[in-house]
Amino acid sequence: MAGSSIGNIFKITTWGESHGKALGVVVDGCPAGLKLSEEDIQTYMDRRRPGQSAMSTPRNEEDKIEILSGVFEGKTTGAPISMLVYNKTQRSADYSEIASYYRPGHADYTFDEKYGFRDYRGGGRSSGRETLSRVAGGAVAAIALKEMGIDFTTYVKSVGPIEIDPDRFDKAEIAKNPLFMPDKEAAKKAEEYVLDMRKKTDSVGGVVECVVSGLPTGIGDPVFEKLSANLAKSICSIGAVKAFEMGDGVAVSKTVGSENNDPFVADGGEVKKQTNHSGGMLGGISDGSNLIMRAHFKPTPSIAKVQQTVNKSGEDIEVSIKGRHDPIVVARAAVVVECMAAITIFDGLLSNMSARMDRVKDFYR
Amino acid sequence: MAGSSIGNIFKITTWGESHGKALGVVVDGCPAGLKLSEEDIQTYMDRRRPGQSAMSTPRNEEDKIEILSGVFEGKTTGAPISMLVYNKTQRSADYSEIASYYRPGHADYTFDEKYGFRDYRGGGRSSGRETLSRVAGGAVAAIALKEMGIDFTTYVKSVGPIEIDPDRFDKAEIAKNPLFMPDKEAAKKAEEYVLDMRKKTDSVGGVVECVVSGLPTGIGDPVFEKLSANLAKSICSIGAVKAFEMGDGVAVSKTVGSENNDPFVADGGEVKKQTNHSGGMLGGISDGSNLIMRAHFKPTPSIAKVQQTVNKSGEDIEVSIKGRHDPIVVARAAVVVECMAAITIFDGLLSNMSARMDRVKDFYR
Amino acid sequence: MAGSSIGNIFKITTWGESHGKALGVVVDGCPAGLKLSEEDIQTYMDRRRPGQSAMSTPRNEEDKIEILSGVFEGKTTGAPISMLVYNKTQRSADYSEIASYYRPGHADYTFDEKYGFRDYRGGGRSSGRETLSRVAGGAVAAIALKEMGIDFTTYVKSVGPIEIDPDRFDKAEIAKNPLFMPDKEAAKKAEEYVLDMRKKTDSVGGVVECVVSGLPTGIGDPVFEKLSANLAKSICSIGAVKAFEMGDGVAVSKTVGSENNDPFVADGGEVKKQTNHSGGMLGGISDGSNLIMRAHFKPTPSIAKVQQTVNKSGEDIEVSIKGRHDPIVVARAAVVVECMAAITIFDGLLSNMSARMDRVKDFYR
Amino acid sequence: MAGSSIGNIFKITTWGESHGKALGVVVDGCPAGLKLSEEDIQTYMDRRRPGQSAMSTPRNEEDKIEILSGVFEGKTTGAPISMLVYNKTQRSADYSEIASYYRPGHADYTFDEKYGFRDYRGGGRSSGRETLSRVAGGAVAAIALKEMGIDFTTYVKSVGPIEIDPDRFDKAEIAKNPLFMPDKEAAKKAEEYVLDMRKKTDSVGGVVECVVSGLPTGIGDPVFEKLSANLAKSICSIGAVKAFEMGDGVAVSKTVGSENNDPFVADGGEVKKQTNHSGGMLGGISDGSNLIMRAHFKPTPSIAKVQQTVNKSGEDIEVSIKGRHDPIVVARAAVVVECMAAITIFDGLLSNMSARMDRVKDFYR
Repeated sequence: MAGSSIGNIFKITTWGESHGKALGVVVDGCPAGLKLSEEDIQTYMDRRRPGQSAMSTPRNEEDKIEILSGVFEGKTTGAPISMLVYNKTQRSADYSEIASYYRPGHADYTFDEKYGFRDYRGGGRSSGRETLSRVAGGAVAAIALKEMGIDFTTYVKSVGPIEIDPDRFDKAEIAKNPLFMPDKEAAKKAEEYVLDMRKKTDSVGGVVECVVSGLPTGIGDPVFEKLSANLAKSICSIGAVKAFEMGDGVAVSKTVGSENNDPFVADGGEVKKQTNHSGGMLGGISDGSNLIMRAHFKPTPSIAKVQQTVNKSGEDIEVSIKGRHDPIVVARAAVVVECMAAITIFDGLLSNMSARMDRVKDFYR
Repeated sequence: MAGSSIGNIFKITTWGESHGKALGVVVDGCPAGLKLSEEDIQTYMDRRRPGQSAMSTPRNEEDKIEILSGVFEGKTTGAPISMLVYNKTQRSADYSEIASYYRPGHADYTFDEKYGFRDYRGGGRSSGRETLSRVAGGAVAAIALKEMGIDFTTYVKSVGPIEIDPDRFDKAEIAKNPLFMPDKEAAKKAEEYVLDMRKKTDSVGGVVECVVSGLPTGIGDPVFEKLSANLAKSICSIGAVKAFEMGDGVAVSKTVGSENNDPFVADGGEVKKQTNHSGGMLGGISDGSNLIMRAHFKPTPSIAKVQQTVNKSGEDIEVSIKGRHDPIVVARAAVVVECMAAITIFDGLLSNMSARMDRVKDFYR
Repeated sequence: MAGSSIGNIFKITTWGESHGKALGVVVDGCPAGLKLSEEDIQTYMDRRRPGQSAMSTPRNEEDKIEILSGVFEGKTTGAPISMLVYNKTQRSADYSEIASYYRPGHADYTFDEKYGFRDYRGGGRSSGRETLSRVAGGAVAAIALKEMGIDFTTYVKSVGPIEIDPDRFDKAEIAKNPLFMPDKEAAKKAEEYVLDMRKKTDSVGGVVECVVSGLPTGIGDPVFEKLSANLAKSICSIGAVKAFEMGDGVAVSKTVGSENNDPFVADGGEVKKQTNHSGGMLGGISDGSNLIMRAHFKPTPSIAKVQQTVNKSGEDIEVSIKGRHDPIVVARAAVVVECMAAITIFDGLLSNMSARMDRVKDFYR
Repeated sequence: MAGSSIGNIFKITTWGESHGKALGVVVDGCPAGLKLSEEDIQTYMDRRRPGQSAMSTPRNEEDKIEILSGVFEGKTTGAPISMLVYNKTQRSADYSEIASYYRPGHADYTFDEKYGFRDYRGGGRSSGRETLSRVAGGAVAAIALKEMGIDFTTYVKSVGPIEIDPDRFDKAEIAKNPLFMPDKEAAKKAEEYVLDMRKKTDSVGGVVECVVSGLPTGIGDPVFEKLSANLAKSICSIGAVKAFEMGDGVAVSKTVGSENNDPFVADGGEVKKQTNHSGGMLGGISDGSNLIMRAHFKPTPSIAKVQQTVNKSGEDIEVSIKGRHDPIVVARAAVVVECMAAITIFDGLLSNMSARMDRVKDFYR
């Protein structure tokens, strides 16, 4: 199945393997006339770049994005925007051994069963490196949204058992620590925790939270194309995500209606919500308040700790995954969550333009 | 946007409003030759039928499904299967008042903002009654999967603060209590809790869990068409769902890799997983073990308790929602979760047939 | 494959068999606020109604369209519009014999090979009666376009060897003759020709031409979603169409560039084309002049004349198709061509709204 | 709108402008395990390469295709196949003048109107050079089909007024003359005609015919996803195509049913058609006989002959298009037609695998 595209009107198609020649993305359906440069995209790429601290793999990949089409004289033309990054540090030797067995927590086994064989170099298509293409594509959406006054605040909410304290929330702090946490104290504790686990040859899970402000009311459609449903898909399509929450999320199942409903209030003529348990959507449609969502990431499956598995000859073996792996996914994944959300939101925003006949007629008048 | 369809190869399109003439579904892409009757579908419809206990609305809707096309001499023909239910007990009078204000927790406000006006009768298109069409369409997928040895066990895992006890898990119990809980004791406590909250003019949230057995390895595609991502979308497209989990779900963020990874073991030549933290998917592709997923439902937003809101003249008012409402969504929603999952899984299963060139060639030999 | 839907933003899904309980359509993605009634749709339905003259089958089908959803207080709501027609005169007996053999020129054989069996009653899903659903769905698009000043002139250009004379073209004449020809004289000759062929137990082909005026410049996208390509698909999806032309069509292959290119001229500040060989599209995008397209229909395959074929036991046999069949397809097909074109054009028009960033920003300002 | 992709299960997404850095394609949904190399693709690329004779532009583009992903150890992996060609001979200077006016017969005007501005270098996205990506992507489909015994014979049937003589049809001749005509004599005359027209600073139209043998019965779906409808779209999406025919095409409108219907005959147990007026499809589904289709191409719009047009200041001007242009499109377009047909057919073939429940069950047994 053709499964490498996402979005209806604004659509990205990603390609490339961890250790192939290059990875890239084609962005189709971007409106013409958006100012866009390689530097604009690179800002987003750099947020997922590894090798910046002990919180991530020591591979020092440059991941310089190159735009090959769709931009002319500094603006998008309406034609597809093709972007790529050539792979440079392909130490394939590191991975040759894993061709012979199935790494626990990885897609090695399911790929072999599905396709008959696999590109075993560094996880191939199911590598976390595939998210590079998502970030390049999603950056275009995020840049377009920013021009419309729609902003993202994305951060790591928890690392293993260490959570941020809402009272200490400091947006400025996010960019200052390698774990992108908006709480200096929690970030420090979390770093120590990650280092400790790494020393124990283990890895750590965490939660990314993404808040979107400035979104107009009316984005998303009833039934299957709910903004919430599409966000759920785009976020859960990120490799290590095992749960997705909107607004109060899992907590809603333990509450009662009178507490969970957000009362409306008349605020100088405008309709506002007094609280935001719903996370900015009602009936799957944006309600004018902040969108709030969370993605729960599992610990990096590649660990040096000895694990039980099976080789391709069907024998039980013990393995210790070598190579340069992130001890935690969430730090570099925050920007991936943001970019996937941006794709879905921008697509929904463009879709919404044809919702009302009076506006269609105005448009063509 | 055309947002009333879901699925690629096996696709359903739903239509109808809570208080319109009828609601229905068109199932397109169902393979020819599947035995199918109105009775088969009705079995699923009856699981979401209201009026069966104090756990649901006293509206006694019959919801008799009628097949209008696509079935000939007891078998599907490959043509679209059109099904509908005519609305009978349309007490629209009950709803006339709500035309003038925005019910908290409902889509009234977002519909008005998006479309300029709304069919205010009973929630119109965003009514829970829309799920009737999902169940009719999803039943076709579930019936096809059953023929292939793929079975669903779907139940209510928790109601407000009351959870089932895994030690008391009894599958046979599910169909015996009005809350569809697989634990007699928990079901009893939960019923009392719901009745108590109802008396307090409030409503209750809960969690539905769905387990799928017998699924072949290899279903789902890498990247955006992961089985997990598509399940997230189809489940989160159900009105009151605010969170979605696969396998260990939100718990993964607090664990470490060595505990979360499922070790592989050679089991008489076959590769098996020793544990199933992943919930039956690796890299978004089914791994041969049971699929496990959970949907977190918010409490029914319609409550008789007095709430703060705004009317269409922009004035702050207090309202008490009248009408016959379920005090809890999860009981009737369990079959909806199952049917949405069935659509996604059957679609993925059909998609997977073209994954390997050798099998394509075999097919046409 | 799910093949019963067409359109991206404005989408119709058809269902139903010639001799099933009913046929219908679900229109999804229609903007909210369009005035729409059953009478509006019926006007289009009546143009394909049989039994009105010797030019069509003597079956007197009423084909009364019923709207079941998506319209509230006389306006579309943005929700899917479900419409159906119940079959009344199902003389299945007429067709029981054809279950045993393959009618030449029909899809009997290919259906059996594809699906393993078929609903043999009157052609089932591949019956011309399926176009009823297309007309009901397309009428919605045509009505919306009309509100925007976009008009269709659709007529029969030729019947067998008899063509209209451009010098005698009279738009008012179209509705006055049973063959919908805009040339009184040609219509008379064509009627005689059809009657003659009918007497000879044979059937006749013909050409439908459709001209669209008032279309804004800019509709259609480069590459695969060209307006021309989408019209080609939607028109060629009509059962008996074997060729599709835009503008000068097949004649272009015999001409030279200096004659085929339409020169541009400055017409009071506006850019106009001096001629319209291109049929209103340049690079697949509408250019502000009239859209012109033609569909070539084969003769009705069902004829009483004796034909050679094979029965299901694999024996050569001779057959004479009984039943009430149109001696010519084009008369009733003209409105089908118009409705399919309307779907494609309205869809393209809605798609085009997101083509430019400055207009997207204006829309949300 | 995202309009740069075509296909459902087997899908290609093209990108790139005539004078940008590169052009390319992403092929998604190709089954794993297909043997594929850059050389295999290059064979197809070379058939559309210019500079080989006076029949095409003297630009000597190498158009060396490079595979960047999706192929591992000589076989497709099931992951997207990204391919590109870097532009080398970008003589943009040739085109700078045309930025100021609208070339007749080109998409300059419609692009400006749709997008607000355009990449004017050599036609940008609407250049014939875009078909390079289609050929690279379609070659993958054609190679897969060839492995299954499905073969294409594609040739130029007519050039301006010069047609091939069916009695002189010689398949071996196709590759031997620069116009790809299967009739040596006609090819010679056609060459002279083209040279003559070129001398007169004009250009020439023509017809490409494509015959597909070995296709199994049952490919294509009823209603909108007819094989015929999808071929119509994919072929009519090629820039200069103005008409599309299947089987007897436009001739069917002048014939009668008893002549146009193909009689079935029992041929040693198998059902065969005695004639093939239908061009290999019945009801839009392949019927086991050869697929036959024709594309009518307009003359190259870029001519040196003086033409009337309008500049961007809205003034009437006279222009003579300079640059290195093909005097005729069809020669290089034959392989484009073949590749677009291959995409559609292979996609239909993969789609058909899920048509029957018994085969679905067999597949998973």
